[in-house]
Amino acid sequence: MGGDFAPQVTVEGAHAALAHLSPGTTLVLFGDRSALAAADRWGVLDDPRVETVHTAEVIAMGDHPVKAFAQKSDSSIVVGFRHLCSGDIAGFASAGSTGAMMVGCMQAVGQIEGVIRPAIATALRTVRGSDVLLLDVGLNADCKPEVLAQYGTIGSIYARTTLGIERPRVALLNIGEEPEKGNLLTKATFPLMEQCGAAGAYDFVGNIEGKHLLSGEVADVVVCDGFSGNTLLKTIEGFHRILQLQGVEGTFMEGLNYERVGGTPVLGINSTVIIGHGCSSVLAVTNMIRLTERAARTDMVSQFKQAFNH
Amino acid sequence: MGGDFAPQVTVEGAHAALAHLSPGTTLVLFGDRSALAAADRWGVLDDPRVETVHTAEVIAMGDHPVKAFAQKSDSSIVVGFRHLCSGDIAGFASAGSTGAMMVGCMQAVGQIEGVIRPAIATALRTVRGSDVLLLDVGLNADCKPEVLAQYGTIGSIYARTTLGIERPRVALLNIGEEPEKGNLLTKATFPLMEQCGAAGAYDFVGNIEGKHLLSGEVADVVVCDGFSGNTLLKTIEGFHRILQLQGVEGTFMEGLNYERVGGTPVLGINSTVIIGHGCSSVLAVTNMIRLTERAARTDMVSQFKQAFNH
Repeated sequence: MGGDFAPQVTVEGAHAALAHLSPGTTLVLFGDRSALAAADRWGVLDDPRVETVHTAEVIAMGDHPVKAFAQKSDSSIVVGFRHLCSGDIAGFASAGSTGAMMVGCMQAVGQIEGVIRPAIATALRTVRGSDVLLLDVGLNADCKPEVLAQYGTIGSIYARTTLGIERPRVALLNIGEEPEKGNLLTKATFPLMEQCGAAGAYDFVGNIEGKHLLSGEVADVVVCDGFSGNTLLKTIEGFHRILQLQGVEGTFMEGLNYERVGGTPVLGINSTVIIGHGCSSVLAVTNMIRLTERAARTDMVSQFKQAFNH
Repeated sequence: MGGDFAPQVTVEGAHAALAHLSPGTTLVLFGDRSALAAADRWGVLDDPRVETVHTAEVIAMGDHPVKAFAQKSDSSIVVGFRHLCSGDIAGFASAGSTGAMMVGCMQAVGQIEGVIRPAIATALRTVRGSDVLLLDVGLNADCKPEVLAQYGTIGSIYARTTLGIERPRVALLNIGEEPEKGNLLTKATFPLMEQCGAAGAYDFVGNIEGKHLLSGEVADVVVCDGFSGNTLLKTIEGFHRILQLQGVEGTFMEGLNYERVGGTPVLGINSTVIIGHGCSSVLAVTNMIRLTERAARTDMVSQFKQAFNH
């Protein structure tokens, strides 16, 4: 029950998500039970598909993530990860402290053997209405070529299992389309991704420039270092925000609303974890829950293991 | 007289630019004189403010820039640079081969002593109607911290002299606002830029995230490596193009039209050089000429020399 506007927004988001859950899915809410009850104007807690786990502590935004994760053992994030690791829940999401969520991913869940660096990914809606997955968007500001080449596999598996893209086209974000273009990193990455493509790890389609990202014509998965990905994402967000304030509307604009996606998956770890924006709205929380269910119902994690444990 | 649509578009652009030139400015056109005459439906060549210099060769887009610059000594680009270096003209612009233009900048004009790496810059129009200068946007895909710190000085001088911003606020493009955020490059650059700020080289305001770039609220000059800058620029172009195709209009959208700026200055070299888009339209050529005049009439180059020759 994290996030700047918890528990009100979170409970309302849970209420809205219930309408979309698949049969057999149970929604487990972690948080202060009396606060949850006080915020529950929809009877969410009485729904037979909902379980609550009482937690008494709160990891605040100012807390040091590693320390807080170690010390606040009765916070919703720590208890949630405990349930995730014991298999009581199949996926875990929170709009609480991003830092603590990452500590949970790395310390409690752990990265998949063979994965050099996990990534966080964002799916953007293209003008064609398809999704394009961008990774990494900020977990690894400095990447080695081998890490980017692996992101092709990681992104491809997520796109296939969770986004439903049958044969994702994987491209390398670059400043030119020709193989020899780029900075030292992308120049060294290109041949590695070409090898991955030749070996059948994924469908490598070459370089993509930022101008083609949202066209949907070139790639479904775009691989980049976390600095570039984060910059690109935030630039699009800023541009989108300005246009929104100016009253520009339409399907394309709507598709770029972050609330539509609801959260950022952490990929390359041993379970399904989605991190929501701290300032998540009801719609964002709803979609965060729906995304977590969708991802947890796939065999994404076992596909990661199969791809890297050889 | 370079560019994909030369000489027609170029002559028409020259015609339109003449209406805006300051008294005392002469516009010198380099190109095949009979082709220019054939394209001249406006009497541009008869204007007393226009001179033509006949050139017989053409550097084609497929030509190797270094070889072409060495061998095609009677092309408009090579002859133009000769006139620039001899002081016959005060500024030079072309929408022809970008590669050959860069060879001219580095070999014929040369970089200013003390400048580690020249940069290319793009001014974007913010939502407030002000300009924000982004550099580097593609000349140096891999930058050292010292290079980025210098870009603060270079960008600041250009913003002051040519964009008319009295006291430009200089920021470092980063993935967080706090000084300790970033990748290895930006983390190492921050303290150097802080020192430059303390020494009065420019007004360093700290980190800026992509989402604040076009707000105009944080910075007038944004410094980044050429990979990030080029990616960011092309992403904005792509986003802008999609919205344009969807019929989105307004001042903000118009301001982001590249034709409004007309060309990219090469900064940190011993003269004024503007490189236009290959696919420049009449409006883009017009503005390329106007920008060249504006920059050439300032003391930008001597300010660069003063800043770095100590």
